[in-house]
Amino acid sequence: MFLDRFKSFKSYKTETTPCRIKLSSNENPFDLPQWLKNKIGEEVKNIPFQRYPDPTSKELKEVIADFYGVKPENLVLGNGSDELIQLLTIIIGNPDQPVMYPVPTFPMYQVSADIVGKKKIEFPLDENFQLSREKIDEALEKKPVLAFFASPNNPTGNSFDRELIKYVADRGVFTVVDEAYIDFSDKEDFISESLKRENLVVLRTMSKIGLAGIRLGTLIAREDIAMEIDKTRPPFNITYPTQVIGKIVLSEGRDEIKRQVEIIKKERDKLLSELGKIDGIKVYPSDANFVLIKVHDGDALHRALIEKGILVRNMSHLPYMENCLRISVGKPEENEIFINVLKELVG
Amino acid sequence: MFLDRFKSFKSYKTETTPCRIKLSSNENPFDLPQWLKNKIGEEVKNIPFQRYPDPTSKELKEVIADFYGVKPENLVLGNGSDELIQLLTIIIGNPDQPVMYPVPTFPMYQVSADIVGKKKIEFPLDENFQLSREKIDEALEKKPVLAFFASPNNPTGNSFDRELIKYVADRGVFTVVDEAYIDFSDKEDFISESLKRENLVVLRTMSKIGLAGIRLGTLIAREDIAMEIDKTRPPFNITYPTQVIGKIVLSEGRDEIKRQVEIIKKERDKLLSELGKIDGIKVYPSDANFVLIKVHDGDALHRALIEKGILVRNMSHLPYMENCLRISVGKPEENEIFINVLKELVG
Repeated sequence: MFLDRFKSFKSYKTETTPCRIKLSSNENPFDLPQWLKNKIGEEVKNIPFQRYPDPTSKELKEVIADFYGVKPENLVLGNGSDELIQLLTIIIGNPDQPVMYPVPTFPMYQVSADIVGKKKIEFPLDENFQLSREKIDEALEKKPVLAFFASPNNPTGNSFDRELIKYVADRGVFTVVDEAYIDFSDKEDFISESLKRENLVVLRTMSKIGLAGIRLGTLIAREDIAMEIDKTRPPFNITYPTQVIGKIVLSEGRDEIKRQVEIIKKERDKLLSELGKIDGIKVYPSDANFVLIKVHDGDALHRALIEKGILVRNMSHLPYMENCLRISVGKPEENEIFINVLKELVG
Repeated sequence: MFLDRFKSFKSYKTETTPCRIKLSSNENPFDLPQWLKNKIGEEVKNIPFQRYPDPTSKELKEVIADFYGVKPENLVLGNGSDELIQLLTIIIGNPDQPVMYPVPTFPMYQVSADIVGKKKIEFPLDENFQLSREKIDEALEKKPVLAFFASPNNPTGNSFDRELIKYVADRGVFTVVDEAYIDFSDKEDFISESLKRENLVVLRTMSKIGLAGIRLGTLIAREDIAMEIDKTRPPFNITYPTQVIGKIVLSEGRDEIKRQVEIIKKERDKLLSELGKIDGIKVYPSDANFVLIKVHDGDALHRALIEKGILVRNMSHLPYMENCLRISVGKPEENEIFINVLKELVG
């Protein structure tokens, strides 16, 4: 009875079919180098596990601030961006004041709104998966208090028009620019914009560049805004191991992360080009570490790929995503196998 | 403007004055044995940090279920109990339907309600910090949908009357029994009760018995109830390191944890007895890993203890807690120093 409203509720589920090649979760395909993992093991074994972690994550915030070129006071850390998305959905406005976001996009905006019981304004992207001024205006008429824009967008891969995002913020909506995938893009980010405005914040994550396992999302905002938001997170939301590991990797492993990101970008461009040569596949442009394709029968191809030991994300069942599959960029050898298998299956 | 309601908001803050002896956060004073920490270091260094953790925490849930004598299907895991308290505050009822809890108690119930914007019914404990049927009836008249009972209660240390907690559940309120401190008590827990009812769940935590650093809270409920609640947590809320470390400690370090808990219980009883001999101090009974005392001038004694290198929790500023200090049970040598310093300062 108390939980009746969740009976029909679908939580955000990922595919976990074990496969030889996993190209389904937009993770960095490369592991950390062993010397860095050894160092992590050494430091973690000295953690006083019986003690609560630093509630301010002071040392970790210093390296993250340096990584993003801002001050520690501009940051709010979350147990993954997921926690920050849920927190913003709770604290901005009240449940009667709706949240707006385009579809298709990252499902957590919808999931968070449903959990909180917040009204939703979902508006469609255009046929190129771009924001349309007309649809945004229609959404704004319904008086949203909060807007989420993932740019580059997931699962479409493209970046949104900066001016249209600023347009929404200019209309007084609290605007969240989720830049989970921007490390793979050459487009300008919204960090400097977020430092100027009281109603625009940026989300970044370590999950796409090699640290999905430790759950580390970052909100970047003007100091006064970050301070207020920081009050509302659970006091010990960043675990002791995450603080220790995040600090080591972002201070000593930064060059390695940058090197891996460059390889992933090159591999993505190669993947886009190879996919473009296959007949019967529509390939969408991508600024992210994945590519979206449309095929004749998405469900069938998804199954056939699993049989060949390759897991990609089947998007076919989502609105506006008929017969679409999302493929995370893997290691060079994985991408090559994928392309060869795909040619066999589709050609 | 968006965050105005948090301007006057006080988040849950803990004291972090660095002191030689920290008796302020109800942590287990004992570290894990070095052989276990070495093992943790070895396993953590092999984590594929670039991968998301298991969203179902399958292996960790199996050892936790065994630890509590229930099935994995009865569990929902949280990034500390804090996350579970916030989640329950969000999903049970709507913001207009109030949450009830006695005062004084663990501040997170109030903090979570304020963040979510949920109405609160705070009702006082009696002069012995026990639940009173009369005050509960008054609270029930205001139609709460959710009730939190910490038993043993923090910061008072005593356990509540079982029958009064069941009485609230019998009245149709979704009842949460927070047993964060029950490992130090000889009283019966509410686990079997939670498995029988659709509106009573139990919270347990690893934070008081030696693993505060990894943030691991557990909700125990009937299978159907646990399944619905589990849908609403963020999909990857338990980090990869926490899953690995929790599993090692609860499978291989269980005897060590039990040994430490027994020492803490003995030390608490010694502390209660020694404190009882000091004139001018009122000592409250405790089933927890801390003791509460009332003194002539709580603020002054708190400061004087810090000057001697001992940090305890000053409760003086809280309602019903005038001149009260809460002292976590430390290692035997720490407790001895504390008692000697206290005799000097008070005697």
